[in-house]
Amino acid sequence: MSEVLSKVKAAKATTVRLGSLTTAEKNEALIMMADALIANETAILAANEEDLRTGKEQGTSASLLDRIKLTPARIAAIAEGVLQVVGLPDPISEILETSTRPNGLFIEKRRVPIGVIGMIYEARPNVTVDAASLCLKTGNAVVLRGGSAALSSNRCIVNVLRDALSRSAMPADALQLIEDPKRSSVDEMLKLNGFLDVIIPRGGASLIQNVVQNATVPVIETGAGICHTFIDATAQLAMASDIAFNAKVQRPSVCNAMETLLVHRAFANEHLQAVAERFREANVEIRGCAVTHEFIGWSKPATDEDYATEYNDYILNLKIVNDLDEALEHIRRFSTLHSECIVTEDQANAERFLQEVDAAAVYHNASTRFTDGFEFGYGAEIGISTQKLHARGPMGLPALTSTKYRVVGSGQIRS
Amino acid sequence: MSEVLSKVKAAKATTVRLGSLTTAEKNEALIMMADALIANETAILAANEEDLRTGKEQGTSASLLDRIKLTPARIAAIAEGVLQVVGLPDPISEILETSTRPNGLFIEKRRVPIGVIGMIYEARPNVTVDAASLCLKTGNAVVLRGGSAALSSNRCIVNVLRDALSRSAMPADALQLIEDPKRSSVDEMLKLNGFLDVIIPRGGASLIQNVVQNATVPVIETGAGICHTFIDATAQLAMASDIAFNAKVQRPSVCNAMETLLVHRAFANEHLQAVAERFREANVEIRGCAVTHEFIGWSKPATDEDYATEYNDYILNLKIVNDLDEALEHIRRFSTLHSECIVTEDQANAERFLQEVDAAAVYHNASTRFTDGFEFGYGAEIGISTQKLHARGPMGLPALTSTKYRVVGSGQIRS
Repeated sequence: MSEVLSKVKAAKATTVRLGSLTTAEKNEALIMMADALIANETAILAANEEDLRTGKEQGTSASLLDRIKLTPARIAAIAEGVLQVVGLPDPISEILETSTRPNGLFIEKRRVPIGVIGMIYEARPNVTVDAASLCLKTGNAVVLRGGSAALSSNRCIVNVLRDALSRSAMPADALQLIEDPKRSSVDEMLKLNGFLDVIIPRGGASLIQNVVQNATVPVIETGAGICHTFIDATAQLAMASDIAFNAKVQRPSVCNAMETLLVHRAFANEHLQAVAERFREANVEIRGCAVTHEFIGWSKPATDEDYATEYNDYILNLKIVNDLDEALEHIRRFSTLHSECIVTEDQANAERFLQEVDAAAVYHNASTRFTDGFEFGYGAEIGISTQKLHARGPMGLPALTSTKYRVVGSGQIRS
Repeated sequence: MSEVLSKVKAAKATTVRLGSLTTAEKNEALIMMADALIANETAILAANEEDLRTGKEQGTSASLLDRIKLTPARIAAIAEGVLQVVGLPDPISEILETSTRPNGLFIEKRRVPIGVIGMIYEARPNVTVDAASLCLKTGNAVVLRGGSAALSSNRCIVNVLRDALSRSAMPADALQLIEDPKRSSVDEMLKLNGFLDVIIPRGGASLIQNVVQNATVPVIETGAGICHTFIDATAQLAMASDIAFNAKVQRPSVCNAMETLLVHRAFANEHLQAVAERFREANVEIRGCAVTHEFIGWSKPATDEDYATEYNDYILNLKIVNDLDEALEHIRRFSTLHSECIVTEDQANAERFLQEVDAAAVYHNASTRFTDGFEFGYGAEIGISTQKLHARGPMGLPALTSTKYRVVGSGQIRS
């Protein structure tokens, strides 16, 4: 039996037990996980050093190495994240509906764990712990397949966590790490219907598209964000400039950062140069439409391919539009349905934008950077869903649950 | 452009308008659809006659022809079904959560339509109308691909409905029928990510598996039901016999009918012959384990393949088990996670069964035949989900919705 199948089966074998654990038992296990991360800091750092050394030998980029790199402070923050999950309310066994039918049947709809969750993600050791704590808190078994550039770190972390679980009420087999670095181990996971209940991909566009295109197991698509900000004619300069600047520059590498700024021509006439100047000072390259170039001589031309690109970088598309309709049309064409914003003082335009734009989160007069589980008050998130089924937007603990109807009768039969 | 792509695009172009329709406008359109079905009875019956004639020429089975056949009474019942959907509450724009964050952001989570729904189903003209009315009531566009044996009926019905819509506030293009009878038109639908938001297959196991195995568009898996009833040691004879008989015989062709009866050995010792006799009188073939044969000389042997088969027929698997654990283990192995029942007077066993069995609906002392949108009080259903994401069990109108976060600020940026 392959590593993937044997580990997925071992995870599945724990689901009945996991579904019956009390909140206290789950929290106790999570606290032991957090403690174990701190207690084993030295071993984890040594394993991480191995990944970094291998990465340097193989010429891995500095930004990827930084994502992989752990420090005592980062390990402490990761353990703290687990304790935050301990503090979140447990959605399992929540009763969502009850009814008594005319024939006397009592029907109750309860939240239950999904079962076995497969996580496919890039080389980020922090995601290993985040995903484990969120899935286990909701009574799910989890099979992790992280990027191979962090394999040594992940192996050490998962061993530490499983060792902690083995001293708790939670079965250690509920947490599995696929160590096979070959792409075929991902391919195998994608087809394990009946064993994996869902796969959540987390990472760049190519990782996610590989999962979406090839999985037969249900997938929750996350992440890709080509987010727009539309500055309407009536927008206030300071607010519009702050929101646009924040959405692009505060952290360009994340999915809720802005890629394209749409500006109403009337606003552009008055204020575009002031807005653009701020981007220039922050070393943001602007790729614009032909009209943009009339305002900003140093802008480069934007192509349709640019409008369809998630840069995750200090590059911004800029397009001048004649009205709200043109902005809406551009967004409909290029949006990945993640987060979209209008800055306007015109309530009717704001309402139309919020109503008509099809995205997980639509904003009026606030930065798209707020699409985030913590910012929304969910305390944590396993990802941001950009699909419309099951969960949309930041996914907190309830997104990791399913439901079950419990029907209690006294001999009812159907006539 | 192919028929599929052009019709899906035409449907997608209506979604902004659909999402903004009032409940009154949608209901008015549905009433016009119902009226039009009655008014065009003659044309629909003539088109149906064509399907029946073609079917007979091609040697189509009598049961399939019966499913295709329309009569004035059936058309009236179908139209009445549309009016029942009119009477259901409209979930769109329902506010599911609101919060004001410490930074003053106001966040509202609202129900919105999913967008464009693809329905792939067998030759059942009634499903054409059901799916259309449920999807349109929830502000979704719908692209129907029904079995080609009912193509003439479906074409006539959809023309009648689109003609009715063209006189309403709802765009006629929101309702599309794929007429290409080739399998390639289904294949094309399965890959239309970005155009179709979800595909719901409805029909037999092979139709559903084709969709699940080949779609890259998100799928809501429906239908397949290998449902079990477990008669525990303490079950009352009359209740157990009634529930088991009802679950198998009342309508064997449907997904919530029982395929396998598990009987505790202590109950079997006392009562199995009485229970079996009733099945014999109803011409139900029993395929049993070796122990079953000791009780029922006329039973045939059951194989693992039998236990894994959804007969939808007057055939029943029967297995004698020594205890609840053995019953749970059998169910875990063969269940399709649809509907599972325990008949018992032992509350602890009942609770354990309801807790541990992983299925959309779990029953204590009632027939599995109740897993149904009407029986659950949802008024209608588009199908019964056997997957754990998005919706599980009977899917009423809320299962045809997604959500959107509307975030209203006053210039908030992230620090």
